[in-house]
Parts: sequence; C-alpha cells; structure tokens
Amino acid sequence: MTTLIKNVTVIPMTRKEYFFKGDILIKDEKIAYAGPASDLTADEVKDMTGFIALPGFVNAHTHLAMTLMRNYKDSQSNLQEWLSEIFPIEDKLTDEDIYSGNLTGLVEMIKSGTTCFADMYFSQWKTAEAVKKAGIRGVLGLTFFGDEKESERRIREIYPRILEAAGNDPLIRIDAAPHAIYTCTGSTYQAAAEFAKSHGGYVNTHLSETAKEVEDCIAEHGMRPVEYLDELGIFSSPCYLAHGVHFDDSELTILRKHGVSVVHNPSSNCKLASGICDIRHYREMGINVCLGTDGASSNNNLSMVKEMRLAAMLATISTMKPASTTPYEILEMATVNGARALGLDDRIGTIEEGKDADILLINAANASMTPLNNIFSAIVFSMPEEAVDTLYCRGRLLMQGRKLLTLDENEIIRNAKEKWEALLKR
Amino acid sequence: MTTLIKNVTVIPMTRKEYFFKGDILIKDEKIAYAGPASDLTADEVKDMTGFIALPGFVNAHTHLAMTLMRNYKDSQSNLQEWLSEIFPIEDKLTDEDIYSGNLTGLVEMIKSGTTCFADMYFSQWKTAEAVKKAGIRGVLGLTFFGDEKESERRIREIYPRILEAAGNDPLIRIDAAPHAIYTCTGSTYQAAAEFAKSHGGYVNTHLSETAKEVEDCIAEHGMRPVEYLDELGIFSSPCYLAHGVHFDDSELTILRKHGVSVVHNPSSNCKLASGICDIRHYREMGINVCLGTDGASSNNNLSMVKEMRLAAMLATISTMKPASTTPYEILEMATVNGARALGLDDRIGTIEEGKDADILLINAANASMTPLNNIFSAIVFSMPEEAVDTLYCRGRLLMQGRKLLTLDENEIIRNAKEKWEALLKR
Repeated sequence: MTTLIKNVTVIPMTRKEYFFKGDILIKDEKIAYAGPASDLTADEVKDMTGFIALPGFVNAHTHLAMTLMRNYKDSQSNLQEWLSEIFPIEDKLTDEDIYSGNLTGLVEMIKSGTTCFADMYFSQWKTAEAVKKAGIRGVLGLTFFGDEKESERRIREIYPRILEAAGNDPLIRIDAAPHAIYTCTGSTYQAAAEFAKSHGGYVNTHLSETAKEVEDCIAEHGMRPVEYLDELGIFSSPCYLAHGVHFDDSELTILRKHGVSVVHNPSSNCKLASGICDIRHYREMGINVCLGTDGASSNNNLSMVKEMRLAAMLATISTMKPASTTPYEILEMATVNGARALGLDDRIGTIEEGKDADILLINAANASMTPLNNIFSAIVFSMPEEAVDTLYCRGRLLMQGRKLLTLDENEIIRNAKEKWEALLKR
Repeated sequence: MTTLIKNVTVIPMTRKEYFFKGDILIKDEKIAYAGPASDLTADEVKDMTGFIALPGFVNAHTHLAMTLMRNYKDSQSNLQEWLSEIFPIEDKLTDEDIYSGNLTGLVEMIKSGTTCFADMYFSQWKTAEAVKKAGIRGVLGLTFFGDEKESERRIREIYPRILEAAGNDPLIRIDAAPHAIYTCTGSTYQAAAEFAKSHGGYVNTHLSETAKEVEDCIAEHGMRPVEYLDELGIFSSPCYLAHGVHFDDSELTILRKHGVSVVHNPSSNCKLASGICDIRHYREMGINVCLGTDGASSNNNLSMVKEMRLAAMLATISTMKPASTTPYEILEMATVNGARALGLDDRIGTIEEGKDADILLINAANASMTPLNNIFSAIVFSMPEEAVDTLYCRGRLLMQGRKLLTLDENEIIRNAKEKWEALLKR
C-alpha cells in the first residue's frame, strides 16, 4: 500500500528553521520519499494543499492511566501532598480501570498529535493492550518501587505479563522505570538499570522534581540526586530523566558525559509549584532536552500542543529574555529530541526517507493560524488542538479529519466515567 | 422568540465554586430564567445534557486588527524593540486591511467563547462595522496618541466616524483609549478622561507594562505611573488598566480607592518578557483583576481558553503556592470581573434572570474533560477550544456546533491572507 501526500508544507525537523513545500510518499510503514513536488504515483493520492506535515509528537513522560484521576484533588497541593491523595486511590484501581484510563488518554493524545509516548505506571500489560488497540507507539515502563526483593518480584512476575501482552508489536518497547529516589532503594535502581541493559530498554525515572527531593537526597546520601545515581552506576545504562527541575552544573556535566536526556514537564512543574526547569541553560550545557505532559492528574491533560506553548512562555519569562528558546527549538523538543531521548531517532522524530511514517498533518486553514507569518510560531503559540487533522503512526492512519479510526471515542468516554464513578463508591 | 436550554450544568458565576444542573430560558435578548429543572415551555427547546453553560468570556484588553500581524517579527524582542518593528507596518494599514484583521480576530474570538471585548486601535469605525456584522459586544477605544492638539483633532474628526459606524447598536460602547504614558502627554490623558466622563465611557489605557516604563516615569515625572495618572486627575473618570505588571502597594492603594480595574495579559507579558503580574496580591489588595489576550501579534492569539490556562499556571509558579489563584477565580477573571472592569456587570458577566443572554455552551463530551472530577479545573486546565460549542450574544446565536452563523470563516481567512500579502509588497 502506498499513499502520496501532495502539495503539503513539510517541516522535516532535519535542520534548523527549515521547511519546504512538496510531497511525502508513504510505502507500507515507511517514508519512501519526502521532497519537492514529484511525479511519483501511489495507490492513494491526497492533495493536502494548505496543510503542514510534522513528525508526530513524542510525549516523553506520562502516566497514561492517571487520566482517570484528572482534576481529582486538584489545585491545592505540592507534589508530596498531592501524592498522599493519589496513592490511596491507586490502591483501588483494577486492571479494567487502568485499561479504561489508558484508552481515554490515548484518545486525547491522538487528537492532539502524539504518535509516541513513554509511560510509567503499573499494570502495563493493560497499557500494552490499549496501545495495540490504538495503533500508537508506546515505550512502556516496568515500574520499580521499594527494595531489591520487590524489584526481583516485579521482574519475575510482572515483566512476563507485559511481554506477553505486547506480543511482537514493533510499536512497543519495555523500559525499566524506577519511580523516584524517594520511593526506591539504591539496589532497586541498580536492578532496574541492569534490567534495562539486558533487555534492550532504557531507564526512565523521575529525578530532581522538587527542591525538597534534592535537600533530602543530600541529607540522606551526602550528595545531589544525579551524583547519587552516578555513584550507583545507573548511567552505564541508557537513561532519560523526567522533570529535572533542580540540576546544578556539576550534575549537568555528569548527564552530558553519559548522554542522559531530560524530559521537561512544564505544566506539571507549574501546577505542583515544583519550579521552572532552565531548558535554555541545559541545552547550552549540551543536554538533549525533550518534552512530556506528565500524567493528566497533574497537568491536567495530555496535549503536547498545550505543553509546547507553556514551555515557550516559561522559557522566556523565567530568563526574561524574549525567545530564549525559539519556537523551532520547542518543536525540536516535541519531536526529534524526544525520539533521541528514547533512543528511537533511527526510526522516528523526523520526516525523511527511510524513517517510519509517524506523521501529523495540521490543517492551517483556521483563523488562529492566519496569516501564517511564521510557521513555527504559528504551531507553538497559536495552533488550537482542533487543527491537528490527520495522524499516521508507522504508516497506519489513526485519525483523519479529526475522526478517530482505531478507537471509539464516545464509548471510551462513557466507559471511563462509569469506571471512575464505581471506583469512588468502593 | 424564546429558547429553553434544558438539562445543562450551569456555572452562573454568581457565587464562589457554585454550579447547578437545570434550565435556562432565553427570551429575546435576555435571560428570563436560570434555575433548577422547570416546566417552562418555549418556541424552541434544546436538550443540552452533558453541556456546561458559562457566561460568555469578556476579553478586557485586545487590539483586534493586529491579528494581521500575527507571528510577524516574532519571538525576538521586548516591548520597545517589537513596537519599533510594528509601527512601520501600521503606517501602511488601510481601512480595508483593518476590517479584514478585525473579522479574522472575531472568528477566532467567537470560536474560543468570547462574547465581549475591549479594543484599542485606530480606524475603530471599521471595528464597529465588523462588530455589527459578527453580532458580538465591542467596547471600542477611541485611541489617543501625542499631544493635546492631536487629541482635539481625534475627538473632532475620528469620534464622529466611529459613532456613525456604531449607529444605535446596543452592543457597542465607545471608550477613551490613550495609548500609554510614553506616547501621550499629560494633557492628552486629561482630554481622554474628560471625553470618557462626558460621553459615558471609560478610560482604557496601558500602564506599567514593563519595568523600564516605571523607571522612565520616575525619571521624567518624579513619581510612579499610577501616582502620575492620579496627579493628573485621570481616575476621577472610570478606568481600567491593561498589563499593570509593576504596581507597588502605594499604587494599588490608589487604584482601590478609585475602583480602577487591572487587566491581566499573561501571554503577552511572557512573550515580551515584561514580567508576571502578581494577581493574587492585587486581589488581596482589593483590586478587581480581569483577563485579556492583548493583540494577536504579541500573544499570538485571541483565545481566552489559552489565556485562562496560562494565568493559572503563572499564578502558581510565580508565588510557588499551589492554587494561589483557584480555577474558579480564573473563571471569575474571564467573565464577571471583566464585566465589572468595563462597567457592564449590570448587563453581562453572570447567568441570572434579567441579564443579557451572553452564554457559552461547552460540550464536555471529550476525552480531555473526562472524567469531570472538578468542573472548574476542567475548564481552566483541560478544555480544548474545540469544546466551545455554542455561543449566544444578547440572545442571538453566533455559533452552534462550532459552526459560525454570522461570519463566513473561509472567506474571511482567504481575504486576510490576500490583504496581508498585498501589504507586505507595498
């Protein structure tokens, strides 16, 4: 099966501030051509004049199933207070609740242009099921909590269940996801890193989300969080760190040395008053910075469209330097940098020949993007989610004209409401 | 003509954190009933189960026609540098360009739920035309620049043109809009205030947008901006101030004494690195704080949906206090506080019997607002513009099911592109 997308404005994300008008040929799951207007033919030809093609967004940090707790015990607490409200609810979640939350989150992600996400949550076998149903790309975290014994149990009992649910789906990878240094022991981190290395995954963990976490780490271990993980040898496995609000230069130097990426989560960091991550400085220090929404219960959504805009606003206001991070750099964070953080940049993150066809088509024919003076600004600052029109993941159409093709939106919403109401009564 | 909206969740904005499920009866231009399920009848009955009714948003500060310069010379400058790029373009604008920019902006505002806006720009007779065509409520600013002589000319030559274009439209009011203390003389401010008082309008001006403006004012006049306007007697006329980022407590005390409102413009203040307005403190000091988008060329859009979210995020991160401004308070800023700032709270800003029917209906049946754990959070943090489904202004339907009923969106977009491209060639 071949599809030729004609007359589209392509932002390939292959070099700075670059876009061109031309064609994209999708052949099965791959991009077979991306360049100027061609005389190629295909089984299906779509004239997409007025549309913009972008690599699908990579949401490099989320907790998909927490969509169920969206706006629950909201807006009243910092991270620790909020977690104390959320943990008792999590104890009540059944696998079917989690599946329902996953599907609701996937509807939202697809409708805002995401084709790949990195998740950290429990019952990831249900997330694998949901991901397969949706046809999206999921990097699923086998979560680790507690001590080494618990880690061994999880590897022994939980990993095979996720693996079985994932089957041979080429869109799923399993990472090791130790929750945080305040919920996992050092030996758990080591077990997770060892697991990642031996199973072809990455380490996905929260780090330095709050100033208190850093203080506590210094009090307990006599060093800062990155130094602590470095001493444990964690960075000998490939790794990406969520939040990373409070790194100092010595920590950034360690991260650069090991090629560790930082996932910026501006909405969550604002909402929980965790702080503003200085992404300009991190980039200048040579760190690959990408973007994630965090879970919908501390954001309160899973829209990379909203996340890009807030990231741009915070970058300017926190440095008091206009465009200290340019709109193009924000787009890099949301696409190619995310792919790089997850080690998937050989397959996704750009629109170029040979890459998987993870492509987002934006309908620019709306008042909010008129006139289109700067295409990068228009996407980052002005675009409503509604402009996200069509989404391909590995060559498969997930959405066309805002109509979902793999998921039944109304049924999923109805089910999520029922599941959540039943849970609150338990 | 009567319309009964049944089974809708109403947020009347009449008291804190309050909502109810029931009916709204619109009779001609007014709300004739808003309360629990009734046995009222009407010419037209709409079952709006699953929808939320909110007063239409009040965008209390914008420059509508600047929609044409959206994303132009973007993201590279502070206020003064940016104005130096924009002023030469403004010199080239024809009345028809301005009309086109106005209509484009009105499409965007209606599609994001705004029923009333306060504008400051030139050729406001074209804005009056556009406002009448759209059926929206416009508080149009007769702008003042320069010295007293120029002010007299504007009152003599420009005011009658706006007045004629406005006709007897009950949705239009004309305010006096001196641009800023760095572009207008003291006597111009006095002429503007006198004009406002004698013509039943308010004074609408920029004040203390940047730290530099405050420094320059102190250097030139030996006092801070609010003290300067107070000494000029400006606050003896009713007044609302845009931006107001850098007021100190003595200034806030003066503003409270005179009942002067502040319009918070978070996007513009971030993008131009002007600073973050401490709205929590302003409210605690007794100031009525409302919300505006500023023009689309420093935002870069006119969406109160985006503006509310950013306002909530900034309020938390700038104070490092979670929910230092609650989602409900943000909704107040976007509705009833805006109405109060403009002196229109006897007519709009709440959903209650006797008020004009300026009503926004939100379709909550989307993944981003599921589950609906907290209705206020859901609107402020999670809602996509797409959920803004139906809009009434003074009882007239402006949009239904996201279809515009008074404006031709495609034609307006096409025309704006043409006008802007032609202007760039001049």
